Amino acid sequence: MDLLFKGGTVVTASSKFKADVAVKGEKIVAVGANLKPEAKTEVIDAKGKLILPGAIDGHTHLAMPFGGTISTDDYHTGTRAAACGGTTTVFDFVLQAPKDEGMWDAVKRRDAICVEQGPVIDYSYHVGVGNATTPEMIATMDECVENGVVSFKVFMVYDFGVDDGQFYNVLAHSTEIGAIVGVHAENKSVNDCLNAKYLGEGKTSAWWHYMSKNEAVAGEADVRAINLAKMTGAALYIVHTDNKQGVEAAAAARAEGYPIFLETCPQYLAMTSDVYKDEDKGFPKKYADLGLRPRDFVCSPPMKGQESQDALWNGIKNGTVSTLATDHCPFLQSEKDWGITKKDGTPGNYTTIPNGCAGIENMYPYILSEANKGRISFEKAVAISATNPAKLFGIDYCKGAIEVGLDADIVVYDPKIKFEVKNAENQHGALDHTVWESAKFKGYPCAVYSRGKLVFDGKDFVGEKGYGKFVKQKKVKFTSPEF
Amino acid sequence: MDLLFKGGTVVTASSKFKADVAVKGEKIVAVGANLKPEAKTEVIDAKGKLILPGAIDGHTHLAMPFGGTISTDDYHTGTRAAACGGTTTVFDFVLQAPKDEGMWDAVKRRDAICVEQGPVIDYSYHVGVGNATTPEMIATMDECVENGVVSFKVFMVYDFGVDDGQFYNVLAHSTEIGAIVGVHAENKSVNDCLNAKYLGEGKTSAWWHYMSKNEAVAGEADVRAINLAKMTGAALYIVHTDNKQGVEAAAAARAEGYPIFLETCPQYLAMTSDVYKDEDKGFPKKYADLGLRPRDFVCSPPMKGQESQDALWNGIKNGTVSTLATDHCPFLQSEKDWGITKKDGTPGNYTTIPNGCAGIENMYPYILSEANKGRISFEKAVAISATNPAKLFGIDYCKGAIEVGLDADIVVYDPKIKFEVKNAENQHGALDHTVWESAKFKGYPCAVYSRGKLVFDGKDFVGEKGYGKFVKQKKVKFTSPEF
Amino acid sequence: MDLLFKGGTVVTASSKFKADVAVKGEKIVAVGANLKPEAKTEVIDAKGKLILPGAIDGHTHLAMPFGGTISTDDYHTGTRAAACGGTTTVFDFVLQAPKDEGMWDAVKRRDAICVEQGPVIDYSYHVGVGNATTPEMIATMDECVENGVVSFKVFMVYDFGVDDGQFYNVLAHSTEIGAIVGVHAENKSVNDCLNAKYLGEGKTSAWWHYMSKNEAVAGEADVRAINLAKMTGAALYIVHTDNKQGVEAAAAARAEGYPIFLETCPQYLAMTSDVYKDEDKGFPKKYADLGLRPRDFVCSPPMKGQESQDALWNGIKNGTVSTLATDHCPFLQSEKDWGITKKDGTPGNYTTIPNGCAGIENMYPYILSEANKGRISFEKAVAISATNPAKLFGIDYCKGAIEVGLDADIVVYDPKIKFEVKNAENQHGALDHTVWESAKFKGYPCAVYSRGKLVFDGKDFVGEKGYGKFVKQKKVKFTSPEF
Amino acid sequence: MDLLFKGGTVVTASSKFKADVAVKGEKIVAVGANLKPEAKTEVIDAKGKLILPGAIDGHTHLAMPFGGTISTDDYHTGTRAAACGGTTTVFDFVLQAPKDEGMWDAVKRRDAICVEQGPVIDYSYHVGVGNATTPEMIATMDECVENGVVSFKVFMVYDFGVDDGQFYNVLAHSTEIGAIVGVHAENKSVNDCLNAKYLGEGKTSAWWHYMSKNEAVAGEADVRAINLAKMTGAALYIVHTDNKQGVEAAAAARAEGYPIFLETCPQYLAMTSDVYKDEDKGFPKKYADLGLRPRDFVCSPPMKGQESQDALWNGIKNGTVSTLATDHCPFLQSEKDWGITKKDGTPGNYTTIPNGCAGIENMYPYILSEANKGRISFEKAVAISATNPAKLFGIDYCKGAIEVGLDADIVVYDPKIKFEVKNAENQHGALDHTVWESAKFKGYPCAVYSRGKLVFDGKDFVGEKGYGKFVKQKKVKFTSPEF
Repeated sequence: MDLLFKGGTVVTASSKFKADVAVKGEKIVAVGANLKPEAKTEVIDAKGKLILPGAIDGHTHLAMPFGGTISTDDYHTGTRAAACGGTTTVFDFVLQAPKDEGMWDAVKRRDAICVEQGPVIDYSYHVGVGNATTPEMIATMDECVENGVVSFKVFMVYDFGVDDGQFYNVLAHSTEIGAIVGVHAENKSVNDCLNAKYLGEGKTSAWWHYMSKNEAVAGEADVRAINLAKMTGAALYIVHTDNKQGVEAAAAARAEGYPIFLETCPQYLAMTSDVYKDEDKGFPKKYADLGLRPRDFVCSPPMKGQESQDALWNGIKNGTVSTLATDHCPFLQSEKDWGITKKDGTPGNYTTIPNGCAGIENMYPYILSEANKGRISFEKAVAISATNPAKLFGIDYCKGAIEVGLDADIVVYDPKIKFEVKNAENQHGALDHTVWESAKFKGYPCAVYSRGKLVFDGKDFVGEKGYGKFVKQKKVKFTSPEF
Repeated sequence: MDLLFKGGTVVTASSKFKADVAVKGEKIVAVGANLKPEAKTEVIDAKGKLILPGAIDGHTHLAMPFGGTISTDDYHTGTRAAACGGTTTVFDFVLQAPKDEGMWDAVKRRDAICVEQGPVIDYSYHVGVGNATTPEMIATMDECVENGVVSFKVFMVYDFGVDDGQFYNVLAHSTEIGAIVGVHAENKSVNDCLNAKYLGEGKTSAWWHYMSKNEAVAGEADVRAINLAKMTGAALYIVHTDNKQGVEAAAAARAEGYPIFLETCPQYLAMTSDVYKDEDKGFPKKYADLGLRPRDFVCSPPMKGQESQDALWNGIKNGTVSTLATDHCPFLQSEKDWGITKKDGTPGNYTTIPNGCAGIENMYPYILSEANKGRISFEKAVAISATNPAKLFGIDYCKGAIEVGLDADIVVYDPKIKFEVKNAENQHGALDHTVWESAKFKGYPCAVYSRGKLVFDGKDFVGEKGYGKFVKQKKVKFTSPEF
Repeated sequence: MDLLFKGGTVVTASSKFKADVAVKGEKIVAVGANLKPEAKTEVIDAKGKLILPGAIDGHTHLAMPFGGTISTDDYHTGTRAAACGGTTTVFDFVLQAPKDEGMWDAVKRRDAICVEQGPVIDYSYHVGVGNATTPEMIATMDECVENGVVSFKVFMVYDFGVDDGQFYNVLAHSTEIGAIVGVHAENKSVNDCLNAKYLGEGKTSAWWHYMSKNEAVAGEADVRAINLAKMTGAALYIVHTDNKQGVEAAAAARAEGYPIFLETCPQYLAMTSDVYKDEDKGFPKKYADLGLRPRDFVCSPPMKGQESQDALWNGIKNGTVSTLATDHCPFLQSEKDWGITKKDGTPGNYTTIPNGCAGIENMYPYILSEANKGRISFEKAVAISATNPAKLFGIDYCKGAIEVGLDADIVVYDPKIKFEVKNAENQHGALDHTVWESAKFKGYPCAVYSRGKLVFDGKDFVGEKGYGKFVKQKKVKFTSPEF
Repeated sequence: MDLLFKGGTVVTASSKFKADVAVKGEKIVAVGANLKPEAKTEVIDAKGKLILPGAIDGHTHLAMPFGGTISTDDYHTGTRAAACGGTTTVFDFVLQAPKDEGMWDAVKRRDAICVEQGPVIDYSYHVGVGNATTPEMIATMDECVENGVVSFKVFMVYDFGVDDGQFYNVLAHSTEIGAIVGVHAENKSVNDCLNAKYLGEGKTSAWWHYMSKNEAVAGEADVRAINLAKMTGAALYIVHTDNKQGVEAAAAARAEGYPIFLETCPQYLAMTSDVYKDEDKGFPKKYADLGLRPRDFVCSPPMKGQESQDALWNGIKNGTVSTLATDHCPFLQSEKDWGITKKDGTPGNYTTIPNGCAGIENMYPYILSEANKGRISFEKAVAISATNPAKLFGIDYCKGAIEVGLDADIVVYDPKIKFEVKNAENQHGALDHTVWESAKFKGYPCAVYSRGKLVFDGKDFVGEKGYGKFVKQKKVKFTSPEF
């Protein structure tokens, strides 16, 4: 026994109970009452603390080329920030490039970059399907599945997105190989047409980013994606769900027995489309006072209205929403300024702002704080942040719970800490600002372990560059909305 | 350490993992990898077995006076049968009698009978509210809550049932005292009118029992109960849900965020209204060959059609249905015959059949067998049979999971056993027949422990009369459909 | 040819077209282009005017005993007011008294009173079923149907209301005899319990009238009534529908093919529950300035919130709401004061206010004004005010449209008149005030004919006391929501 | 007065009443009781007959180039058949060709062909939008509207179809110019992918035509089209609706107040996907005996399953379905054979069958026969076949009802005639077969008039080649589902 967490309260997706937790090497070896330390055992006093599984952030974009630049956090700084926020596994996206690259080749290429940069916690991948135009390309999914990547994602927007028929084919194929398919659901065609319209009318501010990707643009695509999944019987995972229509459609499909799963992100739970209002037309003063601008909040999809936010919270409470993830993809304020003046000096607009915001260090503290305030249970917070993503992406054999035999990815959580996000002082990524600036949390991680190794001591990152390992995914098969 | 279950696979409501389980006295003290037995530790070889929490049957009627007789199983034989089927806690119903009896007085009166009869496993109570006509009577709920009974049930049928206003008042009061309210939902008035109609037309067979309490009669009441709960904001627990309209209404209310919880029973999952068909008009031959008659299946509410059965299964899969319980309330075939000739020798009809069937020994084996066949996960089976009822009725501090600190109510389950229900040979209650006769299960409990004591050895009851203790319920407060 | 309306625009439920209309005796004999008057023909210049069927007010309570008094308008003054507002047929309610009175006997008794008082326009009856406790009493419906009253109404509230089983029996019987059943849908039991609660808390003002009969109390009953109708397959007509839940439930049932029809009233379309707010807590100033008080608006059911009003308007537009009627049942302000001080001098409260408001003269002008402003089409206004009630209650063989062979119940409507309701100046009933005071209408009837006789000349009542005749209803049979 | 229809029963969309109908020149001039003929008036004895407006077939494809041939009926033979079935106006489709042709230019080009061929009844056009890629092309809608074509249609399938953004733009533009937009809703992308899949698997028979355009392929597109319409607030008309999901989505949108209108066709009401079954796998024997083959029923969209057919009938009854039209587009059996062997001698498959079936002469007799049998009212039959299409496409000023001032497009309908469709004997188009062969109708038109001219005498076409005129459409504006 190397570590012994004494006197804390263990939280799982379905229960909360006082117990000690013993770790040997990288694994949890016992959960028990009054466990006795051995000679060399390091004892961690967890009285008054919660013992939680490290979060699994199922949606990150580290070192991702986008809009003429690359997202600010790479596999090192991004995972460092994650670790300091209690996240001990990230799922990053791989995209085929060039388009005729086989999917497993893409993973290998991308993984080399990751390893080079030195991730500090464990990681795995979703393959963003950039080419599903032929059966042969689709068949390259199989090598991924055999090698431990069973999760794929298609895009209904962007140039590398799929059309409905390709989406159908990917879904149908997934059922044969033990894979799961996620989707970024927005109506590209309507989005494009609104962009043409608004820009033609000289509407260039961040507000029109929201208007061009509004509730209906997202909701239509959610409904369509669910309809396509129902046609094939495949499981569907909708990433960054942000609107009421999508939640309602998923609830209806789940009620019919279809395996539809929703992910949402903290920004959709904590913010609304108000953040895109022009600075003289309702942009929240608290943000302006912090030096934030509407363009700093530009991400895709954008935050939606209050009615959608309420629907997402209800979806978490009633189980329609299965997971929480960040879509972490930050850019510098100087890059966000390209929405005003492009790199080349010409006038910019909302379409020239690099898309994405920070969040990787804030997700778990945010949702645990909401649980701590009583909005949801701690069990639910653990379920959506750790246990459910582990199941959906086939890594519950090693991650996602405080459970004997699993990796000792452990967060010691102090519910009494009062924490305020200050990017300059207590955040650990590479970004020069954050949309979470000044967010106040009730409770915070005071220690984070990755496979038994302390990586965050409550203040500083204390882990090791390159410590993180690739986590192999096992095949999955969901035929109903079991959880 | 008194007991050590070695080499098995632990199943919780949210996970499944290989681990040893240690018990000291009445409690689970450790879940770990390669736990070492102490000198006097009894080691149970659980290789290839599942280690499950004992089931909690949230709905039994033991020794219950009904229709001129008393249900066949008393607190001894009933709990004995339960134990041999892997159920280690039962919730029995207390009803005020006379009607001005205070509710806690009713519990005490009833508990004396229970103790006298000698229950072999732990038990607790729901108070069946037989009188909610005055604020004073409703206030007698409080003493129950303070003394450890937080669960109440109202009836929309029967002479002792509530009207909608009384129901409203009970619900509203429950939110103030930390209680939860269950309901038997059928439309009494329509039921009565159909009885008058059918009997007036000479329709007396068991089929008309079903017709007088058909899908619509139950569904209307489910919808109404949910509407009343929504008016008050109270949590509602609908017992023995049996129809599609009810499931849909609950799903809709949960989607809106209301704390509505459904219970269903194995008989609604495994049988349909075909069991009430006249013997020359479609009564299943397999039952006739076993000596069963339509009247043997008469329980309230009766089994419904295939569409409703499908909806219930979907409800389990998508989380709309929270719990499984038996409504165990068996009567002898000679008593069931009163549907043909009453005790007094005059002609009987479907309304003179004592209502209720056996099930207490079959619930857990049935649902685990369905899990073992792949219809649902073992995690889901555990959730609805043990963990969820423990949470809903405030006993998750000591029951409902394989979890350190909880009572060692443990089922060792062998997934390879082939079991066929034979009442004369392998059932342990007092009844002379069972509607589950000849049911075939894949897998079966091979050992059952109650607070660390072996009560079933895979063949015989080996527990002790009077061993069972009353389980105190803690206050509950559900404001959303959290699980 | 006795009358010739020249140059106007005829409006039917499905069309609008320029045509002359000829009347001979009591009947419309021709609709044509450039019809030629005969020697003695009176020619009415209708250029720029609409030629509309007189409205059919399917819901009035004239000379009705209620709460220790009698509604202010009797069959003479009430029909006089109706006529001056373009309504040429009223359906009044008959209630069995004593409770063992046969239904047709009740009609005969009531009709004698009506004839005695001298109605000025045609009239018919719904039988309010006050006793459905036995098959024999229900069978007295048959004599009504044979004699020309096919429309019945049950009450889910009030002492003389039905329980669900009786309601079921009435519905079931209606399908056998060619009748239609209406319902006043509110949950009596919850209403009673809220009354006890509020009065016990000293809450006595008109606001609590609304709170005790709120959206949920009405909506639950609407849903239940629809469920009962679906059980029997009978057509159902919900009177004075006032809430969103009811509209949605009806739309869902109609979408499934069930013959569910909704009536709403102008007060639910034009006013909200704001009218019940205490005078210092939001009672609209415009009403206070006119000398109106919250208690003057007390009717049952009370007006509901904005969301319900919106749903009712949508229901009219999409066809879910079939008819408009008034529920006219006015009382003097001195009687409304009984909500403060009862007749006997003791303190009153909202339950001691006589229930009901005026509206008989305002319905058609109101809805036509809304059409004139573009909210709905004139065709829709005619459909819900005249054609649909005629069909539903079996009098479309003689009433409800500008159609050859029908009674010459004709309204000449001038869309350019600006009219403001002033009870003292331009209203023709017996009441001392009206909740419609100061309502402004765009357009107004400038002449109203009843069976070819002028009864309103645009300013004064010019008809004749006792002119009105009983209109026989023909049997009806609705098996789907055909219109 | 030139014609006098004496003694019949007039049916409108909202009523049925005995009246004589007088015609002068091309117009209805009077509807009256006992109208007197003038000296030269031709009197038609209509005793026992119904006087109905001629049907308006809102969906025909005459002389349409498709799949390497041209639809068998041209503007002469097609309109001749229509006339003999009681249809007195057809709306044919115009498609831009080449794609940069202005829309009004396309109408003019097409109209020249029509005039050349000699239509025998009145006609108008919908413009099938083949190019909505630029604001300039979309702006060519305006000239159409100004010149009397306000109805447009987009295709979600076919090479000339729109993408969602173009669809959005067309809808948005329509609200500004007084137009209405129809849509052929099928998911092209999924359809294409299924075609590739099935053909790749050697599945070539007509059954796979259905499978590739199944309920889900159509339903998804219906839902999407409605979502797009809701985004813009525009009125939407879904042509040839054939599935339950579409009907439900439309009902939901109408319940929310959106102006969504559905058309269905007789083939979806009378036939199911059984017609595509292989001849040895369930193809109905009655058809095989008549010499029909599955490929003869190939039209797009194909007939769907029973559940969808039931939903369509319910939609008619409850008003969700607004119109009936034929999609008449017949091909010779020898052309249908191209599904086996293509014109060029190579093997064919279901995609090489010219799409479309006959129906133009059968629609009105079919739906009137259903009314005559009691399934719906005659009023409803008239509403969906004549009055509603007239309103939706802006020609109710002259067509669609028996109403003074409108064109004397009159059908004298004998409800006692027994009629059986025999293509060789009693059908008047150019086709060599019909999917309606041997259909039996209760009742049939015995005389049909177009603008006062007899065109069908109950047996033969007696009209005149080239008599038909273009009917100008007036601007429309629907903001709610008014009818």
